[in-house]
Amino acid sequence: MEREIRVGLCGCGVIGEGVVTTLLQHADIIGKRVGAPLRLAAVADKDSARLDIVRAQDPSISLIDDAFEIVTRDDVDVVVELIGGVEVADRLVRAALDAKKHVVTANKALLADRGGALFALAEANGCDLYFEAAVAGSIPAIRVIRESLAADRILSVRGIINGTSNYILSSMANDGAAFDDALKAAQQAGFAEANPTLDITGGDAGHKLAILAALAFGARVRPGEIPTEGIENVDPRDIQYARNFGYVIRPLAVAERLETGALDLRVHPALVPVRDPLAHVDGALNAVAIQGAMVGPSFLAGLGAGAAPTAVSVVGDIIDIAKNALAGAPVRTWSLPSDGAPEIQAIADLSSRYYLRFSVRDESGVLATLSGKLGNSGISIEKMVQDAATGDAGAASIAMLTHHAREGDLRDSLHAIDNTHLTTAPTHLIRIVE
Amino acid sequence: MEREIRVGLCGCGVIGEGVVTTLLQHADIIGKRVGAPLRLAAVADKDSARLDIVRAQDPSISLIDDAFEIVTRDDVDVVVELIGGVEVADRLVRAALDAKKHVVTANKALLADRGGALFALAEANGCDLYFEAAVAGSIPAIRVIRESLAADRILSVRGIINGTSNYILSSMANDGAAFDDALKAAQQAGFAEANPTLDITGGDAGHKLAILAALAFGARVRPGEIPTEGIENVDPRDIQYARNFGYVIRPLAVAERLETGALDLRVHPALVPVRDPLAHVDGALNAVAIQGAMVGPSFLAGLGAGAAPTAVSVVGDIIDIAKNALAGAPVRTWSLPSDGAPEIQAIADLSSRYYLRFSVRDESGVLATLSGKLGNSGISIEKMVQDAATGDAGAASIAMLTHHAREGDLRDSLHAIDNTHLTTAPTHLIRIVE
Repeated sequence: MEREIRVGLCGCGVIGEGVVTTLLQHADIIGKRVGAPLRLAAVADKDSARLDIVRAQDPSISLIDDAFEIVTRDDVDVVVELIGGVEVADRLVRAALDAKKHVVTANKALLADRGGALFALAEANGCDLYFEAAVAGSIPAIRVIRESLAADRILSVRGIINGTSNYILSSMANDGAAFDDALKAAQQAGFAEANPTLDITGGDAGHKLAILAALAFGARVRPGEIPTEGIENVDPRDIQYARNFGYVIRPLAVAERLETGALDLRVHPALVPVRDPLAHVDGALNAVAIQGAMVGPSFLAGLGAGAAPTAVSVVGDIIDIAKNALAGAPVRTWSLPSDGAPEIQAIADLSSRYYLRFSVRDESGVLATLSGKLGNSGISIEKMVQDAATGDAGAASIAMLTHHAREGDLRDSLHAIDNTHLTTAPTHLIRIVE
Repeated sequence: MEREIRVGLCGCGVIGEGVVTTLLQHADIIGKRVGAPLRLAAVADKDSARLDIVRAQDPSISLIDDAFEIVTRDDVDVVVELIGGVEVADRLVRAALDAKKHVVTANKALLADRGGALFALAEANGCDLYFEAAVAGSIPAIRVIRESLAADRILSVRGIINGTSNYILSSMANDGAAFDDALKAAQQAGFAEANPTLDITGGDAGHKLAILAALAFGARVRPGEIPTEGIENVDPRDIQYARNFGYVIRPLAVAERLETGALDLRVHPALVPVRDPLAHVDGALNAVAIQGAMVGPSFLAGLGAGAAPTAVSVVGDIIDIAKNALAGAPVRTWSLPSDGAPEIQAIADLSSRYYLRFSVRDESGVLATLSGKLGNSGISIEKMVQDAATGDAGAASIAMLTHHAREGDLRDSLHAIDNTHLTTAPTHLIRIVE
């Protein structure tokens, strides 16, 4: 007695169109893997031009302008939410779950903000709520943490989980581009949004890190609680100095369980040693490096954005749900586990090595005074290089790597130094992650 | 109404002990993730000293010397087969499935040889048969291909899937060790078996590749059908020449669907460009690089062997099965799909670039004659270097990279050259994979 599983798609932008294409073009493969046909029954979008594109591919699909109509249709088993944003998406997913529909979403902002309540609602309704595409596009980070490493205790998760930021920093490193030019190039290549603020400031990575921390540590964290720095202050000189020191600058998201039980969570550009696998994750690639107590290092890389790679993750989730449904399983509950609100380490308490770039007057004795002041604050210098600053007579740059220091102490020391006559511009600090 | 899921473990060697440790030490985490206790009910091993180690950890576990007694016990829901080998393991897994027990195995030889029949038996009995640990230890290659990429068409899978071989080649490259010394070091470090033949000759990688090909392409392939070459003929000079050309030599397994529909399957040492992610997979690490039609490149790396990493994969499978069982799902069937026996490309028909190392007399004109003969056979040379051979007066080495050539044509040409007075030893050939 074969039945089919029927999909309703809400939102037919770039990713949505990728999902339509995948479901239609790979219908034979997918049907084999599910064990029954997976049929795209209905698509909703406010933009009729987008619906016209769907109609041209398959005229039998119901096309609707109101996504809320999809979630109550009798001929829909699985609702795919790709409209983005938080408020409307939240109402839509709730309506779908209330109507006993399984849901697949790629909406990291929604899950980071409302995940706890939504997973509880899904469980209460006996429905699946899947979200592999919400973090790192094609990289199966969710499934691997949740299923493959289910037997292990996760010690840390480090990732390059914002493609736009990595594309920009890679362009700056590979082509010597300035930040603004690299951003424009990313936009022209379709890797950056018209409004790239959420990507560049680290907000997008923060949403994803909140989801990863929930899975890895059972921690319910709000993105606003995560110390977050964007890449907009990374200067081509920093990239050059880092290279000479044997490092690459990558946009990182870090989640680590400290021995105290607190979580070290942060999003910022970081110097990564060239020998680290994350150093080789270039351009639009994303990566997630997991350290497990027993499994050791586990490394996943792939395209973190783009219609086709993300659509594969969305449809992979639909296939999983369809198999559950066909097996008659009420639900393989995968709620975000929660040990409650964890303590998050204040960034001032971070112990790390640091890259520093000082803009100083090109006078004798400056270097000695500077290192003396750092030394007095307990900041020990590992490597240092001084250059005449380009295009600014009488000025010089000093770049250095420190040994481990407490960030609060270091910042106090830098604040004092920047208030003297020694420096001509605020000192630039980038954390080292290794 | 909470119930528990009870595990019976057959074979308590290195991996088995890791599974015992994981189940006992991570019982709290695992119980939370399953939603019910996962209890190790019974362990079987012929070696009573091994059973004593288990008893010391938890005296309540039933200890048995005959694995066949485990599979019929009423207090066992999931059987874990870790005895290895083919014939006895085959009978054991059949007995377990006939007794309606779910099975987890890490036995690649068994699955490569008998997988088709065993999956059919599992399905007929409504049982799960899971095997993540059979390929590449901690790397979730099976789950990623089967679930995460279920919506995509896989174009190729390339992997470093034998830890011993990679450890040996890495030692040769990093420490300049000779093959025999690197092998001894691998054995002392516990990375190579006392009898490492199956690892070194590529047989073990062949078993794993047969499983990967089945998952990726629905192809039922016997390991014996896969063109396989070991690493035993890789010479320190090859590693040095490769490095100067910008390549690293890695033990690769390759599975690719050709445009003709035939499969290109092979196991052999290969030159990999230093920019390729596989080039950075050093020592005991394994990696699997998948190319999907939509998803693009997907890269997974981690420890490919060792008790703890492999045990995490085994217990991850047990957790999955336990969740299925608790959900009341009869089975989420994941049989190895089969489009039947595929055509496998003969290695003579392979089109590839090649590294060649000629041992020649140190006479003028040798190089010109050699390149002329290759040119006459349609073999075009991309790069070439000539050295005086160390320690052998009057002899020289010529190393070169060719452009694409058909392997059969190249071998014919080399055969003719090696039959002239030009060479003093058989010419050494290594394929380039990029």
